[in-house]
Amino acid sequence: MPFHVGSEVGTLKQVIVHRPGLEMSRLTPSNCERYLFDEVLWLEKAQREHDQFRAVMEDRDVVVHEFSDLLRETLAVPEARSYVLDSSLDERIVGPRAAEELREVFQAISDEELATYLVGGLTKGELNARLPRSTSLYLNTLTDRDMVLAPLPNHLFTRDTSAWMFGGVSVNSMHKKARRRETVHFEAIYRWHPLFAEADFARWNDGLESGPATTEGGDMLVIGNEAVMIGVSERTNPQGVERVAQNLLRSGQARTVLALDMPKARAVMHLDTVMTMLNPTTFTRYQNLPPMQSWTIRADGEGAEAGLEFTHNAPERLDVAIAEALGVDRIEVLAADQDERSAEREQWDDGCNVLALEPNVVVGYERNTTTNDYLRAQGVEVLTIDGGELGRGRGGPRCMSCPIEREAL
Amino acid sequence: MPFHVGSEVGTLKQVIVHRPGLEMSRLTPSNCERYLFDEVLWLEKAQREHDQFRAVMEDRDVVVHEFSDLLRETLAVPEARSYVLDSSLDERIVGPRAAEELREVFQAISDEELATYLVGGLTKGELNARLPRSTSLYLNTLTDRDMVLAPLPNHLFTRDTSAWMFGGVSVNSMHKKARRRETVHFEAIYRWHPLFAEADFARWNDGLESGPATTEGGDMLVIGNEAVMIGVSERTNPQGVERVAQNLLRSGQARTVLALDMPKARAVMHLDTVMTMLNPTTFTRYQNLPPMQSWTIRADGEGAEAGLEFTHNAPERLDVAIAEALGVDRIEVLAADQDERSAEREQWDDGCNVLALEPNVVVGYERNTTTNDYLRAQGVEVLTIDGGELGRGRGGPRCMSCPIEREAL
Amino acid sequence: MPFHVGSEVGTLKQVIVHRPGLEMSRLTPSNCERYLFDEVLWLEKAQREHDQFRAVMEDRDVVVHEFSDLLRETLAVPEARSYVLDSSLDERIVGPRAAEELREVFQAISDEELATYLVGGLTKGELNARLPRSTSLYLNTLTDRDMVLAPLPNHLFTRDTSAWMFGGVSVNSMHKKARRRETVHFEAIYRWHPLFAEADFARWNDGLESGPATTEGGDMLVIGNEAVMIGVSERTNPQGVERVAQNLLRSGQARTVLALDMPKARAVMHLDTVMTMLNPTTFTRYQNLPPMQSWTIRADGEGAEAGLEFTHNAPERLDVAIAEALGVDRIEVLAADQDERSAEREQWDDGCNVLALEPNVVVGYERNTTTNDYLRAQGVEVLTIDGGELGRGRGGPRCMSCPIEREAL
Amino acid sequence: MPFHVGSEVGTLKQVIVHRPGLEMSRLTPSNCERYLFDEVLWLEKAQREHDQFRAVMEDRDVVVHEFSDLLRETLAVPEARSYVLDSSLDERIVGPRAAEELREVFQAISDEELATYLVGGLTKGELNARLPRSTSLYLNTLTDRDMVLAPLPNHLFTRDTSAWMFGGVSVNSMHKKARRRETVHFEAIYRWHPLFAEADFARWNDGLESGPATTEGGDMLVIGNEAVMIGVSERTNPQGVERVAQNLLRSGQARTVLALDMPKARAVMHLDTVMTMLNPTTFTRYQNLPPMQSWTIRADGEGAEAGLEFTHNAPERLDVAIAEALGVDRIEVLAADQDERSAEREQWDDGCNVLALEPNVVVGYERNTTTNDYLRAQGVEVLTIDGGELGRGRGGPRCMSCPIEREAL
Repeated sequence: MPFHVGSEVGTLKQVIVHRPGLEMSRLTPSNCERYLFDEVLWLEKAQREHDQFRAVMEDRDVVVHEFSDLLRETLAVPEARSYVLDSSLDERIVGPRAAEELREVFQAISDEELATYLVGGLTKGELNARLPRSTSLYLNTLTDRDMVLAPLPNHLFTRDTSAWMFGGVSVNSMHKKARRRETVHFEAIYRWHPLFAEADFARWNDGLESGPATTEGGDMLVIGNEAVMIGVSERTNPQGVERVAQNLLRSGQARTVLALDMPKARAVMHLDTVMTMLNPTTFTRYQNLPPMQSWTIRADGEGAEAGLEFTHNAPERLDVAIAEALGVDRIEVLAADQDERSAEREQWDDGCNVLALEPNVVVGYERNTTTNDYLRAQGVEVLTIDGGELGRGRGGPRCMSCPIEREAL
Repeated sequence: MPFHVGSEVGTLKQVIVHRPGLEMSRLTPSNCERYLFDEVLWLEKAQREHDQFRAVMEDRDVVVHEFSDLLRETLAVPEARSYVLDSSLDERIVGPRAAEELREVFQAISDEELATYLVGGLTKGELNARLPRSTSLYLNTLTDRDMVLAPLPNHLFTRDTSAWMFGGVSVNSMHKKARRRETVHFEAIYRWHPLFAEADFARWNDGLESGPATTEGGDMLVIGNEAVMIGVSERTNPQGVERVAQNLLRSGQARTVLALDMPKARAVMHLDTVMTMLNPTTFTRYQNLPPMQSWTIRADGEGAEAGLEFTHNAPERLDVAIAEALGVDRIEVLAADQDERSAEREQWDDGCNVLALEPNVVVGYERNTTTNDYLRAQGVEVLTIDGGELGRGRGGPRCMSCPIEREAL
Repeated sequence: MPFHVGSEVGTLKQVIVHRPGLEMSRLTPSNCERYLFDEVLWLEKAQREHDQFRAVMEDRDVVVHEFSDLLRETLAVPEARSYVLDSSLDERIVGPRAAEELREVFQAISDEELATYLVGGLTKGELNARLPRSTSLYLNTLTDRDMVLAPLPNHLFTRDTSAWMFGGVSVNSMHKKARRRETVHFEAIYRWHPLFAEADFARWNDGLESGPATTEGGDMLVIGNEAVMIGVSERTNPQGVERVAQNLLRSGQARTVLALDMPKARAVMHLDTVMTMLNPTTFTRYQNLPPMQSWTIRADGEGAEAGLEFTHNAPERLDVAIAEALGVDRIEVLAADQDERSAEREQWDDGCNVLALEPNVVVGYERNTTTNDYLRAQGVEVLTIDGGELGRGRGGPRCMSCPIEREAL
Repeated sequence: MPFHVGSEVGTLKQVIVHRPGLEMSRLTPSNCERYLFDEVLWLEKAQREHDQFRAVMEDRDVVVHEFSDLLRETLAVPEARSYVLDSSLDERIVGPRAAEELREVFQAISDEELATYLVGGLTKGELNARLPRSTSLYLNTLTDRDMVLAPLPNHLFTRDTSAWMFGGVSVNSMHKKARRRETVHFEAIYRWHPLFAEADFARWNDGLESGPATTEGGDMLVIGNEAVMIGVSERTNPQGVERVAQNLLRSGQARTVLALDMPKARAVMHLDTVMTMLNPTTFTRYQNLPPMQSWTIRADGEGAEAGLEFTHNAPERLDVAIAEALGVDRIEVLAADQDERSAEREQWDDGCNVLALEPNVVVGYERNTTTNDYLRAQGVEVLTIDGGELGRGRGGPRCMSCPIEREAL
């Protein structure tokens, strides 16, 4: 089974990332919030930083797949192209006339161009060259500067849209409207791209079909020992967790799902923005977190009809509950000793969002010097990338990676 | 054909309204914005005002249907009950465990109680009495004060959720999440309530299925002469207008749809908050509106496959375009002469949102004294209701009424 | 000594109120927040409600002074007129040219008109009639709709701007910029109006001169027994409390100041929005308040140089601390038994903001039926006024009254 | 006369800058907006960038004064120390008890430490070491994390607080509360620092005393030919402009003040964020600006009593009005040809905010590659500094410099 993610910290073998491109140049100070960015990026610098990120992984023999390539290759498959266009340009989204007109325009262009526009977005002004006259009410209400197809700058964070856990993937229904079309792209890739089309893997979720039951990969940690930890956060709701947990537990691939009741706030939007793993029993964690209750979920039988059993853990039992899920006596939590303000700043700048390449070898942003120095003093190798620009979308190395193959422990 | 709305100002025969109840007592200063209210209402006074509204209409022999009665009677039909519960408590909305548990709870209660909770909402604390112990992750993350089922205070504005135009109805996909479940209720009523189940009428829209192609009845004026005017507003998008227009024009029941490009802002959320009709050729209109472009839409053939023909009207041609749609030389627009601030205040207080009971007889809110006095001086009979509380959800008499039978002219 | 307020609940003898007028008609939905109103008022109805308020008090032989009359009569005194114009139209406020030009315009008009504009505000359009051509850069940047002099709709809440405690008054430096000019008016009245010019009373504060040390009368309760309770709130800061406390305690007129650390939020903007007195030992209080610490402040000696002594009271000792200040064994707190949402709504609608006319006789808003019924059942006479409009500025009967003479107990 | 700024582009001789320090480490994601920063800075990188900025200027023989040094040296003068402490810790700001207590604490520390805290701020926790027990109500309401003295991170933008024009300085009353204490520091430096104490220079403004008549240096361009251009902006109001203009024109040092009516918005907060000079007749200017009216102001006589003469310029006459002020036939405006979005991004990133070191030699941020390349192609030498961090407070090289000596042309 080639695609399998058995842990957070086993040797990373294959990953999907996305180098930022055209989509970022659509951001302006006045629209960036709509696209979930705090700031506009200096694109060239962000690209250089992303190249560094890729290089750090390739140096360690990780096979790095570029999402844009996967998408372009997927669009070469007629069914995939149809699926993507149907899902992106449905008449309920653009109205009946534009659905036809845009379909025609997009059918006529190359895979390369189509992939570029699907991610980078398309303005009415740009469309005019290909569709000089439209009879669509929707298209006629747009100015040349308006987007016909919105850009998807959050494709940068490949972690969230799909998340592999053991021998299966959760293609996620995203919480924010600005990210929903990302799901269409990953769904198409996993169905039709040659890399995945013939592969045998499970599905933990229904993609777009999951609708209001939202889940995002940043909230899912494959902590090991057939256990997964999922944050109930701003972006992942309990409805979504319950559905993914049911699928995981009934499949028998997971024995424990630990659901953590997090604060619902942008600053701690995903579990991995406050907590990631360094080795099989050690975590780095944001020090200013409030007390958080959790639930240990297990199947109460076997097979596709098994029910779920919930055990409530009071906030003070969190670390015990994690240790139990991992089947160890205790876990270790590393957090640099620093004042509350500095800790808040480093968390904001993704200090807790490291990506393990193997046990005790992680990638982090250079700016979080207190955290990085501290981890090094504890024997963790911290490989750094600049991140001054990449971090402005509020995501670090773990957010920017979708592991599709990683060793268990 | 019993259900037919042939104009805005012909004699009103039958109407659906909703007297505010439990749902309003769920509002607090800290949550009312989420439910689209600017303020909490003094419920008893709002009910007295609504009783006045009903009485004013009944005095003129209008048959007034109370929405709560229609809903309760609909829930007595097993298919309707199933449809409503399936649509309100789907596992994607509440998660798999709660979907089962809540279904069981709601199946067991009377039509009356069910109708009350569907509109009034249900707190976790209230649910506890009927479901002492739940295994749902979703339900377990709620506090006793949280809503399991959200209240629907905007049912007060029966105009928006469904809108009759000629011999058919547009069951609308609502723009705001806080109103989406209203659509489920009206869909069930029109399908299964004895009043409608056997009746023969057309459908101009697909209800919930229309998804992002949103339309709301407040934006739809049946101006007469087989013509409809629809606002492209904060709540109704061009995609939605195009779909409704296509259905109307292909049916042959309408010959013209005039789409008006309105500002997208809460203060002018629907077309009828800035413009309503007084008699077949006369409108009252908010004086501070910016210039607005419009499109005259007609079918370019006949039957179910007919295409659409769009004519663009520059802002200065708006009144000409309306007159053309009406087949008259010119329309008259009445607006009291008052300073900009007063006009802004009266528009905000629904001064433009009058409901015609017959030509030149309208219902309005008492507080808009300048507008009301002016209309009276022009020969319009203005029947007033207090509205001090009812108006706080930003809607006037037209918003609070869903005509299902009104004479053409 | 004619002006003296010895308690919260002793027989009320004289009070200053303000009937809303022109200033309210300046409010629109788009500017009302700037003037601290949640909504625009229906002026005629608000005036009728205010007339009711006045009548209720006059029925009980309270002498009611209208603020507008006091201001007009004050402006007849040349020094007062100069003081008000200097303070309102300083060149630092309007620039050097406008300071001269406006001074000339305002010097030329009658006391009546001047009082009207000072409170009601003046638009550039209105000014044009009197100043057809200006050489002021400031005036030339305004459009006809802009305000040259802002309206002061919060004069309605006469409680806040000045507060009498025992034989003296605190003319307050207001927290919100939108209320600062109110202070100028009261300062002028207390210095030059015939009623006060010759009277002998103390000053607990420095008016505008207090600058950032803000205090507002809504936070000051003269609980009796030479004790005052002051809320440290959104509007009154500890700096301000300390200064007022020092003056009160050094004067010997007060022996105790109890400072209460309130939440800093609009919904509970002043102490009297969550807590008022019904009789010498009984309070009505909002039930959803969080725990609040307090400090008992006393002089550590006598006379003008006496220092202050602070005793910290933990939240659970609040009622004990109040009882100690009152010199009684215990206080009683009355709060109707109602669900959290209803309590929140009634607090928002000024359910806790009653004005005592004598022990156990209070004025309240009619809409707070649960609270009113409860108080009546406890033997309190509750006189009601409508308040549907008056309450939209978030203030009840206590907020709308400035007692200048009230019996001690 | 050693201190004189005769133009925007003559050879720069002496400048005051401030290297960011402790004050920046006070910022967190949750408080940075209060301090007018969009983001927290990576301090070490910001310092390296600022060192680059300093080096670029020193390479061209500019004498660079560090603000912190000036402040420290000023505090060694007893009157200056008293003035600063009085102005920062007045009892109206901190209450009577804290005014005394803090005064004592601050009098006891070294100039170095005092300068550090005045700019870097002081938390209650840090104060505890020096003041273990306080009797101040204000201090007792603070938690250890609260600031007793707020940090002043905007000292980075030395341009704004004081602005030299010809042989005088405008010490400005700042628009935002978060910057008001900066004025105290510059006032003290200009009055007591040995560099300025004996120097002979004029004053164009009254510092803190100007109160609501706010002006900021970023809005003041000394365009040359005895002319100054001042933006009426979010931060500089017409009242302030009029007062500065009056002083400049009456002194005879300036003959023309051109006041420009700018949009009032953060993105274009100062004139120099949209427009700076490259050589005596050439400007770089943001391309997306709306039409802006302006006024040419001249004295109508001579000396201290001269009146002002205003000429209104319609928006389309702006460049003509500038050319007239400069006494030239026409001005040149350089703006790279780029799409609206890119231009918006580069303006936001201070692409228009260059600092001229001499005619046609400017310092800019590296990231604005389109603008920089374009200017180079037009023969302008553009020296770049990184600015990735420095720019997060929305200011470029011109904002970060306060020229005190620059050649006229």
